[in-house]
Amino acid sequence: MKSGTTRAAAERLDTADPLAAFRDRFVITDPELIYLDGNSLGRLPAATPELLREVVERGWGDGLVRSWQGWIDWGARLGDRLAEHVLGARPGEVVVSDSTSVNLYKLASAALDAAPGRGTVLMDAEDFPTNRYVLQGLAAQRGLRLRRLASDPDGGLSPDRLRAALGQDVALVVLSLVSYRSGALLDMAAVNELARAAGVRVLWDLSHAAGAVPVELAATGADLAVGCTYKYLNGGPGSPAYLYVRRELQPELRQPVWGWFGQREQFLMGPEYDPVPSIERFLVSTPPLLSLAAIDPALAVVEEAGVRRIRAKGQLLGRLVTELADEWLAPLGFRPASPGQPERRGSHVSLHHPDAWRICQTLASDAKVICDYRVPDRLRIGPSPLYTRFTEVWDAMDRLREVVTHGTHLSRPAELARVT
Amino acid sequence: MKSGTTRAAAERLDTADPLAAFRDRFVITDPELIYLDGNSLGRLPAATPELLREVVERGWGDGLVRSWQGWIDWGARLGDRLAEHVLGARPGEVVVSDSTSVNLYKLASAALDAAPGRGTVLMDAEDFPTNRYVLQGLAAQRGLRLRRLASDPDGGLSPDRLRAALGQDVALVVLSLVSYRSGALLDMAAVNELARAAGVRVLWDLSHAAGAVPVELAATGADLAVGCTYKYLNGGPGSPAYLYVRRELQPELRQPVWGWFGQREQFLMGPEYDPVPSIERFLVSTPPLLSLAAIDPALAVVEEAGVRRIRAKGQLLGRLVTELADEWLAPLGFRPASPGQPERRGSHVSLHHPDAWRICQTLASDAKVICDYRVPDRLRIGPSPLYTRFTEVWDAMDRLREVVTHGTHLSRPAELARVT
Repeated sequence: MKSGTTRAAAERLDTADPLAAFRDRFVITDPELIYLDGNSLGRLPAATPELLREVVERGWGDGLVRSWQGWIDWGARLGDRLAEHVLGARPGEVVVSDSTSVNLYKLASAALDAAPGRGTVLMDAEDFPTNRYVLQGLAAQRGLRLRRLASDPDGGLSPDRLRAALGQDVALVVLSLVSYRSGALLDMAAVNELARAAGVRVLWDLSHAAGAVPVELAATGADLAVGCTYKYLNGGPGSPAYLYVRRELQPELRQPVWGWFGQREQFLMGPEYDPVPSIERFLVSTPPLLSLAAIDPALAVVEEAGVRRIRAKGQLLGRLVTELADEWLAPLGFRPASPGQPERRGSHVSLHHPDAWRICQTLASDAKVICDYRVPDRLRIGPSPLYTRFTEVWDAMDRLREVVTHGTHLSRPAELARVT
Repeated sequence: MKSGTTRAAAERLDTADPLAAFRDRFVITDPELIYLDGNSLGRLPAATPELLREVVERGWGDGLVRSWQGWIDWGARLGDRLAEHVLGARPGEVVVSDSTSVNLYKLASAALDAAPGRGTVLMDAEDFPTNRYVLQGLAAQRGLRLRRLASDPDGGLSPDRLRAALGQDVALVVLSLVSYRSGALLDMAAVNELARAAGVRVLWDLSHAAGAVPVELAATGADLAVGCTYKYLNGGPGSPAYLYVRRELQPELRQPVWGWFGQREQFLMGPEYDPVPSIERFLVSTPPLLSLAAIDPALAVVEEAGVRRIRAKGQLLGRLVTELADEWLAPLGFRPASPGQPERRGSHVSLHHPDAWRICQTLASDAKVICDYRVPDRLRIGPSPLYTRFTEVWDAMDRLREVVTHGTHLSRPAELARVT
């Protein structure tokens, strides 16, 4: 038996876990519920309700419109903290704003405007739906060709395939650093280098990477990125997204939604749009302040733990999942749907099983294990190093094995419901 | 002396006010502070902190990702309530989503795509900055001419000027129903009729109208509208905006940001973008749920009070402002910056004064009166009928008269700060 596959071994990993105490920084009202969907919506940080109460009751209730004086640059301040602690970017290169999809649209538009005469956009055919649709829309509107590169749905895009596709006609490449389904992790430095050699810009989606793996935007010479804050960053349901534009590119790029939050001397309300030369030129308008505020205490927890320690634990958690899956689940009809080595993955692991949908539902209803499902046959298991224990992973895999061994899931209807 | 200008008369108006009890539906921790900036950020409804606690602690904290099952169509449910109680639209014609600026961009783009061969966009030169900038951007990107119609900054756009400008080449008209500065109220039915006769669509911005004046989108045959929820609807700082598309137009219009929340069978995550035929095709992505949730209890207060009663009181409040301004402030150098008749205005009233900036600051710091300032010389006074008392308006005008009479504001620096 491999190391780590007994429950005692999982207990030893918990005992040795330098991040173990961070679990107390989250609200966990039902300790028996094992939550392995931090890749979709991270848990509620313990400090968040109080901060929100403060913002709502003191900020909005007492301060009223005067509070905007302290709120108006909160997205920029959060951006600088994300830049320093999570994204490896420089001050003034990141800002929190809008949704990931809207930010992708804004930055892709800006990059395409800056690459006239090139007719192709490259992406991974397996990328997240909204990324595929946003780029389809932009390509259709501009008469460009959207080339969706075939990639291994369980292993990610191969650098060779990308290299072969990078030609004179390519205007932009859009890639997710960590695949939403397989968890496959690309080599950002290598991809940026390839693209730079071809004179092409890369727009990264960091949604499934940020807060789970170290990101080095500046050191790898990344040009553009977007991502969400509600997964491993625990910003709350639908919390606003961020965008990154390399400092040197900012003055030359112009996004398509010319809102007043990008305007120089915004409150002079001048007649002509004249965007600031800095990252705020990529802002549009008044941010949804309550959802924005919730990012603040969440980010503090990530900052204190440090992404490198989070990553180290994430790899161990992922290895425990794959070892137990190999040992217990392979005989029950499961197949890996993620790269095998922890260093080639983000923090989540996926498994194929023909009954994945019913198994996922049964785990939630009968076994107090929350993970998620992706069509057509994937079970996605997303431990989040800040609050997931090794023994929780062990217990969840054990309950999963029980459900499938006993066929508990077979009594459920097979049709899908319309949710996450 | 005109009726209503003694404090006793204001007291009588309070006594007779059928909406007086609604003041208790808001958090008012400092009863001496007179808040006349509901046109910028509405007060905190008393029910909102508890609803947010529920959403944060029970929904996010306990329910975790499972709560999305109940959350995912919240924007559509709020949209239907806005349609019925605030906007005079039919079910399935309104949805809450994104920001006003982003929604304006989406609907303006969609409308321009549907008017090929026409090269001019019409707007009011005095419209809110973000509207002007968004349309400048769209015009620049599409090689269209943006024609900014001159209008009376204190009285609004004249129908004759609009009629004269409506030619064969006009692709779209964008107008605010209530002007953010002067409060001038357009006649939606007349404008829609004019535009229909010219074969042109109108995109309305209802930000300063919704919740203050009755809006009849369906009855006036309106095609398109957007607006915000944080002014007279009290949804909270930066709460998400809404958009309206007339039912019959929905299938033929396609917005430019092809996000996955517009996709048919969203969670099947199919390869090609295939938007639903209904209002959700104008959605983009995961909404900022905490900010969205706060709209719910706020809207309930408006629904219960009823927009017609709100409007009736709003006109009386506005008349009290203008009568006192005529009587007390005209001799102190103030001039009206709004239409004179209450039925030609929304709920706010503006005044010109060369020292408006310093007066506004002094009112806040020395006289416990919050109103707002707009460059270069306007003081904007925005009573909100759900919580503003007639005696508050009287007292605020009295304190304003005191400040200017004594020249208290003259000791302040004249330079502007960068806020709302």
